[in-house]
Amino acid sequence: MANKKAIIRLSRYKTALYRLKDLGISSIFSTNIAKEAGATPEQVRKDFSIFGVKGHKKAGYKVDSLLEQLKSILGKEKTQQVIVVGAGNIGTSIIKYKGFRRIGIRIAAGFDIDVTKMKTHGTIPVLPMSRMIDFVQKQGVKIGIITVPNTVAQQVFDQMVLAGIKGVLNLVPVTLRAPKHVVVNDVDIAVELENVIYYVLQQEKHWEASHETP
Amino acid sequence: MANKKAIIRLSRYKTALYRLKDLGISSIFSTNIAKEAGATPEQVRKDFSIFGVKGHKKAGYKVDSLLEQLKSILGKEKTQQVIVVGAGNIGTSIIKYKGFRRIGIRIAAGFDIDVTKMKTHGTIPVLPMSRMIDFVQKQGVKIGIITVPNTVAQQVFDQMVLAGIKGVLNLVPVTLRAPKHVVVNDVDIAVELENVIYYVLQQEKHWEASHETP
Repeated sequence: MANKKAIIRLSRYKTALYRLKDLGISSIFSTNIAKEAGATPEQVRKDFSIFGVKGHKKAGYKVDSLLEQLKSILGKEKTQQVIVVGAGNIGTSIIKYKGFRRIGIRIAAGFDIDVTKMKTHGTIPVLPMSRMIDFVQKQGVKIGIITVPNTVAQQVFDQMVLAGIKGVLNLVPVTLRAPKHVVVNDVDIAVELENVIYYVLQQEKHWEASHETP
Repeated sequence: MANKKAIIRLSRYKTALYRLKDLGISSIFSTNIAKEAGATPEQVRKDFSIFGVKGHKKAGYKVDSLLEQLKSILGKEKTQQVIVVGAGNIGTSIIKYKGFRRIGIRIAAGFDIDVTKMKTHGTIPVLPMSRMIDFVQKQGVKIGIITVPNTVAQQVFDQMVLAGIKGVLNLVPVTLRAPKHVVVNDVDIAVELENVIYYVLQQEKHWEASHETP
């Protein structure tokens, strides 16, 4: 399997290409993609070479062709259905997020135990947890996002696995015990924020130390 | 500077320790922390050694002492004030998120250009963008979270830098051009979700390939 960072870069190239396409650009050079995606042109060319992405380097790449190739590599020729389990503040903001569809991701439904959360956002219904297993099996959903309170995360995750979910984006700050065949990707906004704070404070210390009077 | 992954691990250990503390546990071994944080005991001990975290390995670590040491390393002895720029669905869900305060992060205010967003969530006000620079300077805020539409992200980010923000958690799927002294950490939920999808599809291909009839 390719490493996670390379895949994340491919996703970023794809996002960058969509933006360039929106600007009416139809062919580009690796330097343009690099600049837009925050990478180096060498890295872009290397990644394209590793994943067999084809294009005419000297005359520039065709944006549409690149997008098709990247979508194919990232497994998104067909729209992927995703469920959101937990319709609190963060879950609801994800259900309402409009940026998924264009990249081939469709939120099929949200689930929650709280009956006051049972509403429809746009075309996406929030359903009772009791219907989750049945829904996942009938619709053949394989991917889920979990955003429930810490204390019930493991139990809810186990139910998702039982239903047949094979990959989970975990937004709960809890390490889930997962069977080997299930992919879990943890994203913790608080941890990412702490990271920013750490580096800012380090820079300040560094600055102070290098400006002390001798 | 220490590498990003090590810092992220320290944050996870801290989150795990808070959970263990909630369970009434006052002293623990590296294996407990490792299990709770999804790491190996060797990694935990190595990280503690690198960052000079002290404790009695054989008798176990004191949870309170570990927490103080980790907070000190992560620069959180004092509460860090953070602003949220963009009070759409995701921005609002972050403003309402209750998990920050206990880890020493306080959302000081949200900002938006839309007057209909000017309300107070709990004790956190959403203020007009025109007041952002003044607020940041008067309160001495150094950290911000940006969650505005793609098209205005760079312009809004430039204003944050102008105000004196030194570190930004970027939730917008756009690569921001930042001056060298400003720390930017990009988190793109869609990219993280694509990552999950990619690995699930890879596993399926792998499974099919290894189960083909010869």
